Amino acid sequence: MRKIDLNCDLGESFGPFTMGMDKDILPYITSANIACGFHAADPMVMAATVEAAEKQQVALGAHPGLPDLMGFGRRNMTVTEAEAKNYVKYQIGALQSFSKTGILHHVKPHGALYNMAAGDYNLARGICEGIREVDPRLILYGLANSQLIKAAQDVGLSYAQEVFADRNYEEDGTLVPRSHPDALILDEELAVDRVIQMVEEGRVKSVTGKWITLEPDTICVHGDNPKAVQFAGKIHNALKERGIDVSAAI
Amino acid sequence: MRKIDLNCDLGESFGPFTMGMDKDILPYITSANIACGFHAADPMVMAATVEAAEKQQVALGAHPGLPDLMGFGRRNMTVTEAEAKNYVKYQIGALQSFSKTGILHHVKPHGALYNMAAGDYNLARGICEGIREVDPRLILYGLANSQLIKAAQDVGLSYAQEVFADRNYEEDGTLVPRSHPDALILDEELAVDRVIQMVEEGRVKSVTGKWITLEPDTICVHGDNPKAVQFAGKIHNALKERGIDVSAAI
Amino acid sequence: MRKIDLNCDLGESFGPFTMGMDKDILPYITSANIACGFHAADPMVMAATVEAAEKQQVALGAHPGLPDLMGFGRRNMTVTEAEAKNYVKYQIGALQSFSKTGILHHVKPHGALYNMAAGDYNLARGICEGIREVDPRLILYGLANSQLIKAAQDVGLSYAQEVFADRNYEEDGTLVPRSHPDALILDEELAVDRVIQMVEEGRVKSVTGKWITLEPDTICVHGDNPKAVQFAGKIHNALKERGIDVSAAI
Amino acid sequence: MRKIDLNCDLGESFGPFTMGMDKDILPYITSANIACGFHAADPMVMAATVEAAEKQQVALGAHPGLPDLMGFGRRNMTVTEAEAKNYVKYQIGALQSFSKTGILHHVKPHGALYNMAAGDYNLARGICEGIREVDPRLILYGLANSQLIKAAQDVGLSYAQEVFADRNYEEDGTLVPRSHPDALILDEELAVDRVIQMVEEGRVKSVTGKWITLEPDTICVHGDNPKAVQFAGKIHNALKERGIDVSAAI
Repeated sequence: MRKIDLNCDLGESFGPFTMGMDKDILPYITSANIACGFHAADPMVMAATVEAAEKQQVALGAHPGLPDLMGFGRRNMTVTEAEAKNYVKYQIGALQSFSKTGILHHVKPHGALYNMAAGDYNLARGICEGIREVDPRLILYGLANSQLIKAAQDVGLSYAQEVFADRNYEEDGTLVPRSHPDALILDEELAVDRVIQMVEEGRVKSVTGKWITLEPDTICVHGDNPKAVQFAGKIHNALKERGIDVSAAI
Repeated sequence: MRKIDLNCDLGESFGPFTMGMDKDILPYITSANIACGFHAADPMVMAATVEAAEKQQVALGAHPGLPDLMGFGRRNMTVTEAEAKNYVKYQIGALQSFSKTGILHHVKPHGALYNMAAGDYNLARGICEGIREVDPRLILYGLANSQLIKAAQDVGLSYAQEVFADRNYEEDGTLVPRSHPDALILDEELAVDRVIQMVEEGRVKSVTGKWITLEPDTICVHGDNPKAVQFAGKIHNALKERGIDVSAAI
Repeated sequence: MRKIDLNCDLGESFGPFTMGMDKDILPYITSANIACGFHAADPMVMAATVEAAEKQQVALGAHPGLPDLMGFGRRNMTVTEAEAKNYVKYQIGALQSFSKTGILHHVKPHGALYNMAAGDYNLARGICEGIREVDPRLILYGLANSQLIKAAQDVGLSYAQEVFADRNYEEDGTLVPRSHPDALILDEELAVDRVIQMVEEGRVKSVTGKWITLEPDTICVHGDNPKAVQFAGKIHNALKERGIDVSAAI
Repeated sequence: MRKIDLNCDLGESFGPFTMGMDKDILPYITSANIACGFHAADPMVMAATVEAAEKQQVALGAHPGLPDLMGFGRRNMTVTEAEAKNYVKYQIGALQSFSKTGILHHVKPHGALYNMAAGDYNLARGICEGIREVDPRLILYGLANSQLIKAAQDVGLSYAQEVFADRNYEEDGTLVPRSHPDALILDEELAVDRVIQMVEEGRVKSVTGKWITLEPDTICVHGDNPKAVQFAGKIHNALKERGIDVSAAI
């Protein structure tokens, strides 16, 4: 039986500033990437988010980002491997404290940290070493076929290869940048079909028409707005209808 | 045999800004209160500080503060009990990640958080509940006879009653505020004598001349400047000469 | 002819976090208090807010707050008069840069800084001296009859006495704290009537029933949510219908 | 008569964290680049720094940086031209408030913002437009022959071409990166000779041996440590001995 995880970024509010429809997306997902105070969230937000995710029995993950609240961790910054490693350790530890068990399920780097590490082995390695030093049982969530997956293999971490339902792929398996007109798959039916194909056939058609081979373990969905939540529901249902087991990455 | 701990705040640098003579004070102390990123420190500083303290076999403690880097956590802020609790949980967790074992020895609230909680039971209780929720084995370091100690007793935490070598006490056991001309004991010989008396006789003379009863478990020393380091060395030696066991609070 | 100003806090978004219905409230107000980066806003938000307010020909004011983004500047902090003065100078200057003329109309301290200074003459004086040092033509907006008004008089600043449409007053002219059940006037008709009475008769009934004398120059309205915007529109229209000149404080 | 300015970064302390020997370097310099709160400094530090520089009659400049206190503004960040422009406007305005006249002399971008803009015309242009919008009389200090100078020319700003006493140059006029072993000129005599040659002959030998043509208006010196201060004094004296007028860039 095929199996796939649906993950979503949660807990991205900060102080009086609210962001995301966390309560609405929770029923559709099987793992949550929870912001840890660098690109978003504060201790009060983290406590509430962990509590909501635990109640819904969603797997808890840390979502560490760059120290850039103003830019929401989406701007590239030249950080060293040691900085990346220690930033990740700090944020995983901070989030662990809010879990009932003190144990998390996975770590997914956020935004620019994720994107830079997907293409930079040394940075990816720093991140993976940081994760392992905090808890070697943690699963790395990283872009399928990227340097993050390679680094996880090399340092001995479990990993989940992540694919995106609403994004186009380049021939080399990287995502078409958001600045490009073809970055997004806007047709929801097509997007759902692509997801099914990635899960069942292990392949997706790139923006140039060439097929890419993938072994997806987890699909990224979004809870930013009502349409995104509805789309996540559609994916969730389509997968179940195909008899696919939707549950957190092992 | 009498026993006492010598604790000091460490790891208070931030980014390019250096503070404290951590390497010089380490040989004289038995437990370290390590800044966690709110009032001072960043992940790189924390990693280096934990490594240095572990090398010297000094007991590792978290030193959580208010979110006020500009004011070094020394300015009172009206935080709720829930905020205090979650700020403390966040910071303890973040520091734990840098320890080889993932386990810390104690938690000492910093600056204004310490002072406010010493006199405010509800705030102290929030802090102590936060500590217990992260790890019930953690020892609270708090002002002797204060609300912090009372709250630790009530929530079932171990605690160490802290005394100050260089500070005068009011009749009620609180510290004479720094704004007051009599706040500090400037005569080092007198300060050492007072420490010995606190440890051996369990009492100290308040600023009004009235005796206060204390059961000190730990003495706070400083590593800010060469004179402070030298004074810490004097206290360390004087205690040893009296046959007192200088080691981390149990 | 009677004359009154309607002021509102604007530009309280931060980075990716949006707050407030700035575009909707702008048509109803005559002066804007624009966040300056300490409790809310960043340079991009400030540039956009100043541009929108200038387009609508609303008087531009700085809205300096405490350095507490996480708490939105609403938490009391023990800052010195010198700190208050320099925090205010910094923020006024920063905002001035985004104005076409480089000149602002007024300064209204935000949140906890406003409330603390309303009752603390020395703090109020530090703030008013800071304002005067940046530009002596700036008008201080402060709680009617408060220490802020007294300090403005003493340092030679123009001032606008501010009243609140939706808040109850204590006998001494201070606002009933938000923590109190009677803090807010929930009946909109009553609130509008009170505003008219304050403007036309210079008095308002306190929560104990005793009348308070006021000389209101400006009324604070809110743009946080659709209901608040609608209420601001009601006040605006009710004032105009009574033949009152609604325009920025001179 | 030849004329040259000696500039130095000042006011880089933050809250309780002190940095730089501002008082010691002030007698040797003719213009000061004062940190504005993004990469270093806070309003209290800025007030004290401006006061000290005004007392010494040193020309006041803003030293705006990236919003990265932890990295001291030295880490590249992908900011848009609009972000660079507004960050610069914000910081210039904030500093202006602390000047007695409300008028500054110049603006020198800091760290990574300086280095990125030296090679990126669009970013340099955003910065220069921001400066001009705040005050068109402000002089841009930028790396000699760089995109910053080109952008200043294009937007109609006065500019001062900056050279470095202690740094080696590439053939194309850029600085040899600090990561390279030949980045620094360690021989002080040689460094002083190179400064004299740059000022008198308008040329310097690059690291490859090829001559570079320069028209230096200002020389960057440092006040970080006693040796740097002493070296600045040597340069100052050597220039005077050659009959060169050491004064702020016009």
